[in-house]
Amino acid sequence: MSQDRLILELQKIVGQQSVLYKPDDLLAYECDGLTIYKHRPRAVVFPADTEQVAAVVKLLNREKVPFIPRGAGTGLSGGAIPIGGEVLISLVKMKRLISVDFENRTAVVEPGYVNLRLTKAIAHEGYYYAPDPSSGMSCTIGGNVGENAGGPHCLKYGVTSNHVLGVEMVLPDGEIVTLGGMVPDMPGYDLTGLVVGSEGTMGIVTKIIVRILKKPQGVKTVLALYDSVDDASETVSAIIAEGFIPGALEMMDKTAIEGVEAGTYPVGYPKDLEAVLIIELDGLTAGMEEMSEQIVEICKKHNVREVRVAQNEQERTLWWSNRKTAFGAMGNLSPDYLVQDGVIPRSRLPEVLRRIAEISRESGLRIANVFHAGDGNLHPLILFDSSKPGETELAVKVGSEVLQACADAGGSITGEHGIGIEKQQDMTKIFTREELDAQIAIMRVFNPENLCNPDKVFPKPARCVEVKKAAAASL
Amino acid sequence: MSQDRLILELQKIVGQQSVLYKPDDLLAYECDGLTIYKHRPRAVVFPADTEQVAAVVKLLNREKVPFIPRGAGTGLSGGAIPIGGEVLISLVKMKRLISVDFENRTAVVEPGYVNLRLTKAIAHEGYYYAPDPSSGMSCTIGGNVGENAGGPHCLKYGVTSNHVLGVEMVLPDGEIVTLGGMVPDMPGYDLTGLVVGSEGTMGIVTKIIVRILKKPQGVKTVLALYDSVDDASETVSAIIAEGFIPGALEMMDKTAIEGVEAGTYPVGYPKDLEAVLIIELDGLTAGMEEMSEQIVEICKKHNVREVRVAQNEQERTLWWSNRKTAFGAMGNLSPDYLVQDGVIPRSRLPEVLRRIAEISRESGLRIANVFHAGDGNLHPLILFDSSKPGETELAVKVGSEVLQACADAGGSITGEHGIGIEKQQDMTKIFTREELDAQIAIMRVFNPENLCNPDKVFPKPARCVEVKKAAAASL
Repeated sequence: MSQDRLILELQKIVGQQSVLYKPDDLLAYECDGLTIYKHRPRAVVFPADTEQVAAVVKLLNREKVPFIPRGAGTGLSGGAIPIGGEVLISLVKMKRLISVDFENRTAVVEPGYVNLRLTKAIAHEGYYYAPDPSSGMSCTIGGNVGENAGGPHCLKYGVTSNHVLGVEMVLPDGEIVTLGGMVPDMPGYDLTGLVVGSEGTMGIVTKIIVRILKKPQGVKTVLALYDSVDDASETVSAIIAEGFIPGALEMMDKTAIEGVEAGTYPVGYPKDLEAVLIIELDGLTAGMEEMSEQIVEICKKHNVREVRVAQNEQERTLWWSNRKTAFGAMGNLSPDYLVQDGVIPRSRLPEVLRRIAEISRESGLRIANVFHAGDGNLHPLILFDSSKPGETELAVKVGSEVLQACADAGGSITGEHGIGIEKQQDMTKIFTREELDAQIAIMRVFNPENLCNPDKVFPKPARCVEVKKAAAASL
Repeated sequence: MSQDRLILELQKIVGQQSVLYKPDDLLAYECDGLTIYKHRPRAVVFPADTEQVAAVVKLLNREKVPFIPRGAGTGLSGGAIPIGGEVLISLVKMKRLISVDFENRTAVVEPGYVNLRLTKAIAHEGYYYAPDPSSGMSCTIGGNVGENAGGPHCLKYGVTSNHVLGVEMVLPDGEIVTLGGMVPDMPGYDLTGLVVGSEGTMGIVTKIIVRILKKPQGVKTVLALYDSVDDASETVSAIIAEGFIPGALEMMDKTAIEGVEAGTYPVGYPKDLEAVLIIELDGLTAGMEEMSEQIVEICKKHNVREVRVAQNEQERTLWWSNRKTAFGAMGNLSPDYLVQDGVIPRSRLPEVLRRIAEISRESGLRIANVFHAGDGNLHPLILFDSSKPGETELAVKVGSEVLQACADAGGSITGEHGIGIEKQQDMTKIFTREELDAQIAIMRVFNPENLCNPDKVFPKPARCVEVKKAAAASL
């Protein structure tokens, strides 16, 4: 089908205003949060409801035109980049909160509904939505489902897959199915769990049933400043070993601190600090005072330089704003940065951090570390300058080395940002050919013609080598 | 291949002593915990390690002989019943605890390892394994993986799928794969989540990586006795609404109480009681006293007749022994019983209980209710006498009506016991034909020739009708 004809047919379904196709209009859709790869989409279409999504998909399927679902475009692994000139199906117009059932603690949203809006919409009844990616102000819950998004509070509450009970999805042939339901642990295979984190390769989610949680009665936030990353790491291990499950347990290293202190929300951290921990307890108020005192004691036992408990909501908000804007604040240190997203067993933290420092020295690129320390989810931020010849490629290489270090430590190459196009080749670091084939076979059940977000997630065949999965060694 | 030849070939792989084939020896393997259906297996084979499992499976695959993995045979939905005369592959000889990593809170076990043994093996370091089915003393972790087993403490801690990080599995063609790994939320599709709860239809799990948890510092167990089921139900809702997440929140109704009081662990409940609640708080000791007082107050606000906090471990153990033996204790009231396992949104509890009472009156069969009230997981125990003509069939019909009531309330037909052969036809109560087809297509990726636990879980085609999924209506 000609481009003109395709645009016309798409316009017939969603209306003239809801199809972008002029080169200038497409510019903003060439990449997502991973800005180092770009490609122009064939068109961007904005359906208003499930039926329009299904009709668009049926048309594209009939014409064998590949397509990609897109939320707010905040994804960090390039899952929504139209690397093959695909049609983008933007879900931003489908942004309704369909229903809330406080008694059974569920809500139904459309995929374009913005993450933080849900918490705001249900706060008056004392409820909130737990997954809290740093991009919460702009990212959509549909995108969160695609990437199985996490956030600082996932240590205690789990990632998106722990909060999605079911979805309505348009399959790549345009058929509409419902997976899961209003109660957890439905019988049959856990297809909802399969779709969450599948990065748009199985279909387009058009409705999402999520769990909502009662807001904790109280919160205690402890800030601990360290002269050594090892002392901070050992504090993390000690807190967990004592049986605490903090709502969040975050660390930033020296370079990260330098970045956030030059950013929009400086806390006033001393310049010679090596590490900052934010330890947040939440839950019922009974016993919380005592618990925060115990946390302070643990910090002191591990050579903390200074430790304080937030005295008011304002202070707590400042600490979190500072932390949550850490990625963007890297712009104060470097023209460009690449976020990595490795996961390691908690006990290997000090050794992997040493290896990352080594990689930084060897490559000459600075690396800032911001991470969900409690669950071993690292976010090394590789600072580089794309205007210098070869430095983008070097940053990509350094990122891959960092992931290799995580895989070597028995960990994984992504905690919450997904594979997308960024880490396709890194999949062989943790999966064998057979294991990848099994996953591709599953994908093909939903997406037999590979029309829905094609050529993402899995390594390109040419470069796929047999590398034994790290985890297998530990069995 | 002739039966004699098959037995000989199997013996060559696992040794002469590890194959049962004489009719008398096979008697004990005709059914599992669902005793109303029986069929003799062709043979039972006991492999000692993964390689033997793979060799057995390769042989059976080559000869196109269907087979079924089997743990302790405590399953309640008939998943391990060789309804087509399959070969049973018993995993009970593979019962090693392979390794424990306290620092990273993981353990690796073989599938035949008994659930409660894990908690005992790691207790000395202050750890435990959370999923606690009532059959914990005999059921195996491999079987728990097959059925995605739950237990009273799953309200707070989640079911088996929340505690399995990865598995080693022999595919139905004999190939050995590893899914998941030592850290949670591995990239790619969540195949571990898919295998957990797949009831042996995707392959034979030969190693399991599980999370282990730090034992709570303290426990407070509250027992509340009620003159009305509605008051007890409202107490449950109020506790959850206040933001408490008890470790367990269990209810028994009058008939169930009659059974347990005639059993091995009578507590001495008054005879005219309508409902008992066991509410257990666990976690850090800080604030726990205050929280248990708040729970007691909530019970009082909802017309509790009597409420007490366990004064010592002995008292707590008695209350739990009484509750955990409830299924078996039904033998004191009736020669036979059929356990059902429906899940409903918590708010629909009173109405569904009334419907169950109605079904009981209409059918003339007594129904005792024992349930995980906190998460809406009902266990109606249908009492019947298999020696009376037609009464087994009536019990099966009543069970199906109970599940229909759960599905009508927007719930599900199983919480933790699986589908097996018992609820195959009930699958159409909550899934459309398309949704079932999608699941079957996924199963076929692993099990293309339907040799591994064939003809379980999914409805027999002839009886499969299109019934719209209940949950779809609420979207």
